[in-house]
Formats: sequence, structure tokens, C-alpha cells
Amino acid sequence: MNRAQLIAQIREKETCLIVGLDPDLDRFPTGLSPEPASIFEFNRQIIDATAPYCVGYKPNIAFYEQYGPAGMEAWHQTAHYLREKYPNHLRLADVKRGDIGHTASAYARSVFEIDDFHAATVAPYMGRDSVEPFLAHADRWTVLLALTSNPSADDFEQLPVGKDQLPLFQQVIRTSQQWKGSERLMYVVGATRAEELQSVRKWVPSAFLLIPGIGAQGGDLDAVFKFGANNDVGLLINSSRGIIYARGDSNFAQGAMEEARAMSERMRPYIR
Amino acid sequence: MNRAQLIAQIREKETCLIVGLDPDLDRFPTGLSPEPASIFEFNRQIIDATAPYCVGYKPNIAFYEQYGPAGMEAWHQTAHYLREKYPNHLRLADVKRGDIGHTASAYARSVFEIDDFHAATVAPYMGRDSVEPFLAHADRWTVLLALTSNPSADDFEQLPVGKDQLPLFQQVIRTSQQWKGSERLMYVVGATRAEELQSVRKWVPSAFLLIPGIGAQGGDLDAVFKFGANNDVGLLINSSRGIIYARGDSNFAQGAMEEARAMSERMRPYIR
Repeated sequence: MNRAQLIAQIREKETCLIVGLDPDLDRFPTGLSPEPASIFEFNRQIIDATAPYCVGYKPNIAFYEQYGPAGMEAWHQTAHYLREKYPNHLRLADVKRGDIGHTASAYARSVFEIDDFHAATVAPYMGRDSVEPFLAHADRWTVLLALTSNPSADDFEQLPVGKDQLPLFQQVIRTSQQWKGSERLMYVVGATRAEELQSVRKWVPSAFLLIPGIGAQGGDLDAVFKFGANNDVGLLINSSRGIIYARGDSNFAQGAMEEARAMSERMRPYIR
Repeated sequence: MNRAQLIAQIREKETCLIVGLDPDLDRFPTGLSPEPASIFEFNRQIIDATAPYCVGYKPNIAFYEQYGPAGMEAWHQTAHYLREKYPNHLRLADVKRGDIGHTASAYARSVFEIDDFHAATVAPYMGRDSVEPFLAHADRWTVLLALTSNPSADDFEQLPVGKDQLPLFQQVIRTSQQWKGSERLMYVVGATRAEELQSVRKWVPSAFLLIPGIGAQGGDLDAVFKFGANNDVGLLINSSRGIIYARGDSNFAQGAMEEARAMSERMRPYIR
């Protein structure tokens, strides 16, 4: 999925919502057996219900790996279902991989070739070698962690670094813009730090930003658009638990649809 | 595997070698079909041949994920085989995971509960929240990335940070020592930067250090012991490709054994 296609989706649907698919059997709705074999059915119902109100899906692989092979089967099934039934929705693998060159190439093959995701999240700590193997996939997106939405983002991401004393997350953005294939970079910037989006936009006026932390983590949609939007919208706003666990009864898919629709309605004035 | 057991293994075998199990079908020996179904057989022969000359095994999950479900089946089979047949060898999952609390807990369950690894590598970028869920497993080791052996470790890991202007990797070590369960931390410090081990030992005189980059990446064993060893040895030295691809013919397991034995013989004078 290229940039023009992504922007067209956002304009047409008047939303930049990404639905996070993070299955947790302890929160599965009544009527669905709380076992790994049910994960795909849970996802399928959520996807079918929310597809008109979002531009993509972001499964986080940790929630599948935790259930072993049966969990990973649901991961592959979900990727396959999305590709077959909703080919125009962005498929974003939230894997946060990071390793040196040879190994990074193997990770990139896993998400882009085995499961045919359009995009994958990648960690920056090890530098250029660990990211360029993802960027080498010319028709895919690499979504680099910059500023995350967790409290301990302050531990390292906010530390002033180098001669310019930029916070590390800004240095990550600035440095990564020099890497081969950097036009295929997006960045994770947590919504809990919406005012920081202004500083991010200094370094990457046109890049897409993936914004977690709206909903369950309490981020402010108004501030996100005010400080983060650009002329192409330039934002992908993720909500996971707030949507998929909106209702705990057998009408969970209806609940997810209503929540996704409500979030998209809140976004519409900013996108129009 | 606790600290005393690990040290006893090292003293008894007079080696601190960890064998990396990173299957690459393009480098599989003659006589072994280059398909994912052969990975476990490859690993099994390597393990049986090298077990007397090492204290543990470190499969890197990227090399399994790249082959999809069949690759991951080999991952689980390898973990299971090691646990059953070589329970006293350290089983270290090289996964370099990093995500926020709830998600980090899921990753930790995957490596420590599903596959029963003793230890897992974890990335520090997102800070305390992303590491403590691993440390919460009281009988396991969390091996935090500090200074890696790739050239672009300079991009961020070596940047001076904060008011003390320590290189980021040293700040990671210092900060992480304040986290709950920090007595169960080990650190990755690349052998290509052996002189840096001195500065690491200032912050963590007693922690075990996992040293990649000996062998294929050219690190210097003498310098690693000189600058990195402590009274309990305190080192786990990894070699992957140099051992498992020592010979490309049907005697590959013999080749791996000879290479592991030779490396251990080089280590012996430092450990005695």
C-alpha cells in the first residue's frame, strides 16, 4: 500500500483509525470459549464489524505468541483473512523487532513475505543496521519507535543526547531520516505526549505518525490533530482495548463497531 | 537455573561458551534437505555434538520466524529437546523483545512459560515498564541489550546522554540496576568493543555479561577476559555461525564439535 493509496483511504472514509487486535482470553466475551482456538473467530467478528470505520488493523504479536503455536496460527489466519477480504485496509504488524543486519533481514522476511503485512513496527536502539533491512522492502512501511506512550518512556527516550541535546526520541527521528529508504519510514509517537508532536513535525513534516494511547491510555484526540496533523492528515490513530473490549457480552462485535464508529465520528471534523 | 548453578557449570567444564543456533537453509550442509522441516534435525545434531564443550544454547528466534509455522515448530522442538536432554545447559531465547507493560508480560509468558527458557534478551529503549515484566519471573534471567556488536551501535548506543554525559549504553546499565528484580539482569556487550567492558564493570561488577561477536564478527577473546571477567568468570561468550557452519559437508556436526572444543580450549586458561 503506497502513500497515495493510504491517503485516499483516509479521505474517502474520513477517518485515520487503526484498530488494534490484541487478543486476551481473560477478557473474551461471553459465548466465545476462552481458548486460543477462538482467537481467529474473535478477530474475524471484530474485523467484519469495524471495517467500514477504520483504515487498517494492527495486531500486536505478543498477544499471539503468549498462546504458543495455537496463538500463532490465529496470527497467520488473521493476516490471511485481512489480505483476502479487506485488501485495501493497511495491515500493520506490531512486532517491535530489532536486531543486527543479517537477523533483521530474517525478521523482515517473516512479517513482509511470510505474512504479507504492509507495515511493521521496529525498535531503533541498535541503529541503522537494524532498520535498513526492513526499509530494503521497497513496497512496505517501517514504523520506527520514537516516543512511546508508557510512563517509563522518560527513562531513555526523553534523555537529552549528543551535542544538540535533543531528546533521544528526536535524535532517533533526525538520524533515521538519513537512512536508505527513509521515505518509507513512519514513526510511533504516543498520544499521551501530544504536545511533543510539534517537535516531531519539525523533523518530519510529511511522514505518517502512528499514534497509540488514544482511548484506554487517555490521550487527547484534539491535541493530536492540532499538533500532529499535516496537509495529508499524516496520522494513523490506534485504539485497541477501547474498541475490541467495548462490550463483554455476546454482542461484542456490535460494541466494537459502535466504538469504532464513534471514534471515527470524532475524527471526521479534523479530516474533512 | 540460578547463579550458583551457572557458575558451577562454567567451573566444571572450564568454558563459558554459548552456542548460537541460527538456522539458515542457504547454508545447510550437504545431505540435509534445505527446508524448514530439517531445522530441528540440524539443531539436534549440533547440540549432541557440542554439549560437552558449552554451557548453553542461544537460538535467535528471527531465524525461525523467517520460515513461518514450520520454522516455529523447529523453535519449540529445539527448546523442548534441550529441556529434556540437556536440562543443565542454559537455554537462552534471543528474542530482543521490547514493548509496554501489559504486552511485555505477554512476551515474557511466551518465552518463559510456553517454551520454558531460562533467559531471554530484551531491548531497553522503552524503559522500565518494558523490562520489569520479564524481571517479575523470579527464577529466570533477563538479558538486556547494552552495547551491541554491529557497526551502527554508534548511532544511539554510544551517544552521550543526560547530565553525566555517559554513553547511552552505560546509562541503560546504570538505570536498569535500580529496577525491581535487577539482580536477575544480565547485559549484552559486544566483543567487538572489548575495551568498553571496563566501563561496564564499573556499573555492574558482578552481573553476567553475554558477549556476542567472537568468531564470525572478529572479537578478541583475550581482551574480553582481560576487561570483562570477574571472580565468578561473569561472562557468557556466544559463537553462532563460526560453530554451526564450521563445515558444510555431511560431517557438519563433527565440524561444530571441533570448533566448539577449540573455542573452549582457548577459554580454559582464563577460567582455571
